[in-house]
Amino acid sequence: MADAVVDTVASVPVAVIGAGPAGLMLAHRLSRAGVDTIVVDTRTRREIETTHRAGILEADAARDLVETGVSDRILREGHEHEGTELRFGGRAHRIHFKALVGESVWLYPQTDVFTDLADARDRDGGTVHFGVKGTEVLDITTGTPRVRYTAADGSRHEVRAQYVVGADGSRSMCRNLVPEDRRVRYGKEYPFAWFGIMAEAPPSAPELVYAHSGHGFALISQRTETVQRMYFQCSPGESVDAWPDDRIWETLQARVAGEDGFRLKEGPILDKSVLRFRSFVQEPMRWGSMVLAGDAAHTVPPTGARGLNLALHDVKVLADILLRALGTEGEAALEDYQPRALQRIWRAQNFSHWMTRLLHTPPGGTPFDLRRQLGELDNVVGTPAGRTYLAVQYTGWPVGSQA
Amino acid sequence: MADAVVDTVASVPVAVIGAGPAGLMLAHRLSRAGVDTIVVDTRTRREIETTHRAGILEADAARDLVETGVSDRILREGHEHEGTELRFGGRAHRIHFKALVGESVWLYPQTDVFTDLADARDRDGGTVHFGVKGTEVLDITTGTPRVRYTAADGSRHEVRAQYVVGADGSRSMCRNLVPEDRRVRYGKEYPFAWFGIMAEAPPSAPELVYAHSGHGFALISQRTETVQRMYFQCSPGESVDAWPDDRIWETLQARVAGEDGFRLKEGPILDKSVLRFRSFVQEPMRWGSMVLAGDAAHTVPPTGARGLNLALHDVKVLADILLRALGTEGEAALEDYQPRALQRIWRAQNFSHWMTRLLHTPPGGTPFDLRRQLGELDNVVGTPAGRTYLAVQYTGWPVGSQA
Repeated sequence: MADAVVDTVASVPVAVIGAGPAGLMLAHRLSRAGVDTIVVDTRTRREIETTHRAGILEADAARDLVETGVSDRILREGHEHEGTELRFGGRAHRIHFKALVGESVWLYPQTDVFTDLADARDRDGGTVHFGVKGTEVLDITTGTPRVRYTAADGSRHEVRAQYVVGADGSRSMCRNLVPEDRRVRYGKEYPFAWFGIMAEAPPSAPELVYAHSGHGFALISQRTETVQRMYFQCSPGESVDAWPDDRIWETLQARVAGEDGFRLKEGPILDKSVLRFRSFVQEPMRWGSMVLAGDAAHTVPPTGARGLNLALHDVKVLADILLRALGTEGEAALEDYQPRALQRIWRAQNFSHWMTRLLHTPPGGTPFDLRRQLGELDNVVGTPAGRTYLAVQYTGWPVGSQA
Repeated sequence: MADAVVDTVASVPVAVIGAGPAGLMLAHRLSRAGVDTIVVDTRTRREIETTHRAGILEADAARDLVETGVSDRILREGHEHEGTELRFGGRAHRIHFKALVGESVWLYPQTDVFTDLADARDRDGGTVHFGVKGTEVLDITTGTPRVRYTAADGSRHEVRAQYVVGADGSRSMCRNLVPEDRRVRYGKEYPFAWFGIMAEAPPSAPELVYAHSGHGFALISQRTETVQRMYFQCSPGESVDAWPDDRIWETLQARVAGEDGFRLKEGPILDKSVLRFRSFVQEPMRWGSMVLAGDAAHTVPPTGARGLNLALHDVKVLADILLRALGTEGEAALEDYQPRALQRIWRAQNFSHWMTRLLHTPPGGTPFDLRRQLGELDNVVGTPAGRTYLAVQYTGWPVGSQA
């Protein structure tokens, strides 16, 4: 069946573009139901494993890693966080998720989630091609879609599938396959970015610390007993070269300083980067036999840690729907995907936007804005209703429930 | 003691500038404790009684009217609302305050609150001078402040007091007595206003309806069995002359239209006005022996019905503090006023801002803004946490509690 332009032709029910957590978790879920996939990614496995990303998993997502048999490593190496801290006005306020809504979150970096998923594909004999080039997705409106790509060794391959999933991240090529005049792109840019560091130091706090200050936002996160992840609000055009270690520590310390004498534990800075972010949603999330999942369809600001969790929720919904589509229902089953995914997507878009607005100092913000923000923070941490409102969104709305 | 420039000189412990609900309720509370006041207002009683204002009282404020002996008319003529309706996406969603937080609110117009308070001052022999001119507040930093005014009959009067309360509303003269270089004014303007009407028609709904639509916000409120109060978002520069009745009803109907076929009951429009609004706080709320209360110190957008309630909360706190100041503590007691009042003021500023932002269509808003807003509304009405978050703020944070 191979034609002149490719070296191999393979057939699988589902081809997946993108081997990040969304693509690999989808492949894993389908595999458990006996459905084969081929997953391709332009990045090498090493590139993905060394790109620092999010660090907080919802309890549901953590449970799914264990219960679907990806790995139970999160239980040994992850850290359950029963709450988080909001600092403002120089004081610490804990939001006790577990007491408020009965759920925790897990500190477990996205790179570890990825490693577990990639190992599971290897272990289960799944096909994942990293470092491919020239990926093309063809014929998605014909019912016999194809994916072509050049493998790392230069050979050309074609995959014939019934469905193609675009899980190719925030710079998605797949989403561009929805014709321009048939898609809507919702978006918002923010007038700030995050300066992120990895530092060799012991943890400064047992849980994440979201710090509001008149100087701007900071987030104190953890990675291991000896390596910590921290961020501070900066200008989107900031250059890492302008930030020697001393200046970074001075900035971070000022943003978390308070009457309780809280100080960050400092150490050598291993990595510095500026993370720009935006809010983005593309609709439709399906075109013909192609569906989009995760960052390919939507991205959120990192405040509130929704991005990875939202991607994993997409593929949980999508795996069920693809199984129905591959069963007796056919392509019509795909019509359920977008409405089922979108409710959480827009709730998460709002939550991420709200957390961002709650904690960041907008350039040009007025004294009224700052005082209103402190009034909002006081209402959020100072009332059970406010704490619960934050907790239920931060821990992820229980799937299929009204809680 | 009368000097050449005045006809009479009176002495009272507390002089109150402004005979709106804040000023009169303060006078009533002090009177119950045996403390005399003189209240002056530049408006006539009739002017105040015929200016349409807010219509929703918190349960605490309603109870206070009855329990402090102002009047129990609210129990007979007011309407207890156990919830409110949010309409969006063409559907109605009820927020059941009573079930969520154990409190209701009362539909009872500010003009009725005023009438009850003015009647109570008459009944109890309190002194209130309406329609005065040329009010001057003098010597507030000397410990022997004076108020001078010209009565409606042209006679000149001086009141010597220990304390002066500026309860003279959103165009307060008193707040200007805090020196310019010692005060901070926090404010925010909004790019829209409310077009308000009084209509002769039966009620269209049993409770207030807050309607979000792609065309802009609308609020359906009630007054009596035969007169209704309604508002719709308009441009701040809108002229009532451009709005014949038909156009008003068409606009209102479009904003509340939905798949449930909800329609407003129409009737002759008795009154039309454009209400501009802003967020405003002045600090300090005290200067020497003068303190500010209610709209004189802060105004909020009307969305969420906080303004009157906040003013009544101010004077509840202030009455206690003035009694302490007039007792053994002296002027030092006044130092407690601002911190005790401000927490609620900034929570209410935030809530009013949040409700406004949640429900209005901002001019130049993007499709992202609209979808995010719908995501927020879905989260607010679709989860117990969201409904409770709204309810606890709308019904007023329980005084002195953390709820």
